[in-house]
Amino acid sequence: MVIAKARAVDGPDKPFREAEIKRRDLDSHDVLIEIKYAGICHSDIHTAYGEWGPVDYPLVPGHEIAGIVTAVGPHVTKYKVGDRVGVGCMVDSCGECENCRKGEEQYCLEGNIQTYAGVDKYGEPTQGGYSTHIVVQENFVLSIPDSIELDAAAPLLCAGITTYSPLNHWGAGPGKKVAVIGMGGLGHMAVQIAHAMGAEVTVLSRTLNKKEDGLQLGASHYYATSDLETFEKLAGSFDLIINTVSAKIDLDAYLGLLTLDGALVNVGAPAEPLAVNVFSLIGHRRSFAGSLIGGIRETQEMLDFCAEHNLAPMIEVISADQIDEAYERVLASDVKYRFVIDTSTI
Amino acid sequence: MVIAKARAVDGPDKPFREAEIKRRDLDSHDVLIEIKYAGICHSDIHTAYGEWGPVDYPLVPGHEIAGIVTAVGPHVTKYKVGDRVGVGCMVDSCGECENCRKGEEQYCLEGNIQTYAGVDKYGEPTQGGYSTHIVVQENFVLSIPDSIELDAAAPLLCAGITTYSPLNHWGAGPGKKVAVIGMGGLGHMAVQIAHAMGAEVTVLSRTLNKKEDGLQLGASHYYATSDLETFEKLAGSFDLIINTVSAKIDLDAYLGLLTLDGALVNVGAPAEPLAVNVFSLIGHRRSFAGSLIGGIRETQEMLDFCAEHNLAPMIEVISADQIDEAYERVLASDVKYRFVIDTSTI
Repeated sequence: MVIAKARAVDGPDKPFREAEIKRRDLDSHDVLIEIKYAGICHSDIHTAYGEWGPVDYPLVPGHEIAGIVTAVGPHVTKYKVGDRVGVGCMVDSCGECENCRKGEEQYCLEGNIQTYAGVDKYGEPTQGGYSTHIVVQENFVLSIPDSIELDAAAPLLCAGITTYSPLNHWGAGPGKKVAVIGMGGLGHMAVQIAHAMGAEVTVLSRTLNKKEDGLQLGASHYYATSDLETFEKLAGSFDLIINTVSAKIDLDAYLGLLTLDGALVNVGAPAEPLAVNVFSLIGHRRSFAGSLIGGIRETQEMLDFCAEHNLAPMIEVISADQIDEAYERVLASDVKYRFVIDTSTI
Repeated sequence: MVIAKARAVDGPDKPFREAEIKRRDLDSHDVLIEIKYAGICHSDIHTAYGEWGPVDYPLVPGHEIAGIVTAVGPHVTKYKVGDRVGVGCMVDSCGECENCRKGEEQYCLEGNIQTYAGVDKYGEPTQGGYSTHIVVQENFVLSIPDSIELDAAAPLLCAGITTYSPLNHWGAGPGKKVAVIGMGGLGHMAVQIAHAMGAEVTVLSRTLNKKEDGLQLGASHYYATSDLETFEKLAGSFDLIINTVSAKIDLDAYLGLLTLDGALVNVGAPAEPLAVNVFSLIGHRRSFAGSLIGGIRETQEMLDFCAEHNLAPMIEVISADQIDEAYERVLASDVKYRFVIDTSTI
């Protein structure tokens, strides 16, 4: 058993504190990873604050994990000591259901086992990446291409795959017009990936504050949604809209921006229901859909795609003592575009 | 100019009355049709009662029209006198936009010209099929196969195509599980068409009252949605759900019945918005979509498909004096499954 150092939170209104957590002895297919960097995802905050349902505290969040393999179980074949690896939002699944067999473990019919705030198959609570070490079954470990720095790799494991998967599934590519709602951690990855896939990319952000970055990352157009003319001007324009904002939006206004057979895909989920006027859908056979991270095979494909196209998140590396402050800044949209914890400071 | 006899309504709370309406002189590509039968669609009632927005009265509804060609304009090539023909929900479109060029005239970017309550390209209000005659541009006239009786053909022009089109677009066929919400005019056609396409069909109806008909028309299963166990039992079951009910429903409960990548497609539209919990979509990459009738080419394909598979609506033929009563019975769901007006009684 490994005793890992970690940063844990004890309740919705509590600060992070130093903690020690146990990582299990290596089972035959387990990999021990020395975590080097862990990204801070908005989901960490939703979960840590209990906004997505009750949580067992203390909680160690973090599902954007990059590090180095330091030990492997006796039957591990995919990784060896010294490999550069990543772990994303899930660490296991049943492996046997229809969806797992398709490589869509994120939609496991038994429920995938989440990297933190879940319960592993040994009955123990899972704890995430704000920590020095983690033990994960090899099938849920990703290989990080050499050309991607470990600190930049971390956010790809959630923000990268969460946007890559719907762009891939809904066919973003040459001749397709793609809009990205929200220019945050997910949005700034969606822009890069959609552009690299060959689509014409438009950012729809509340203001024009981040326009320069958006255009530099590959967007051809950048509009402020606080300007109501945007919605008239862009009516019927897009084949695909990726909504990275998990706050409540005026869905009908955005659906009106889709062309015939267009889809608006939410990758964030507001806690409250959204209202849809069905006429917004019927009028041009539009779809409102949702997408959850991506499967393991697709996550590896995304990492390789990012390496091939030199894509990486823009990050701000922080020390473990800055987590509380970083949470506040994420909530105030004051980050360009992802905080990544240097876990050597834990 | 032809003076046609018709049945018109003068306001939301007014009964139908005898009327005379003018049908334009035949333009070069126009066809004069002696209407034999006109179906009564729920949309007729929504429109006649002003529920879908303000209407210019007097109004002659009817967009499920079957009849015989009695004259043709000088350049008509598709039809000749004596042909058995139909007219559906639209009588014209711009013909030039991207969607018209794809054969999806129902999604014309200029707006298609509806069979009634529209304005034609001559600036005149359109009046529908509760009438003895109608003049329609040949490209919006359908050929009714010999094996389909004219009275049974009428409802295919709306109820048939409205359900055929999404079943076709979303790939209902062998190996696919399709559910149909609502066992009414549209629902009982959706069951037949989906079954003929090779899908395994389930009806989700409020009660089991029409179960025998549903099974006879091709459904393999029939569940009452008033029984809450239905939603537990069928969770994650369907690839495609066609919702023919235009009343407000608990969307999340129905979305929960979809499998990975499943779609719930509304062909009816409630006047009020529906609430969607985005988690219902994200969990299994589900879609909530809408579909509007079908294009002209696809409508002809549907008629030919129905002829080939011996599909026809179950109808109750009524006289023109029974329209008001029929409306009341439609609203009370007391029709198996479509009223069709014998227009010789107008």
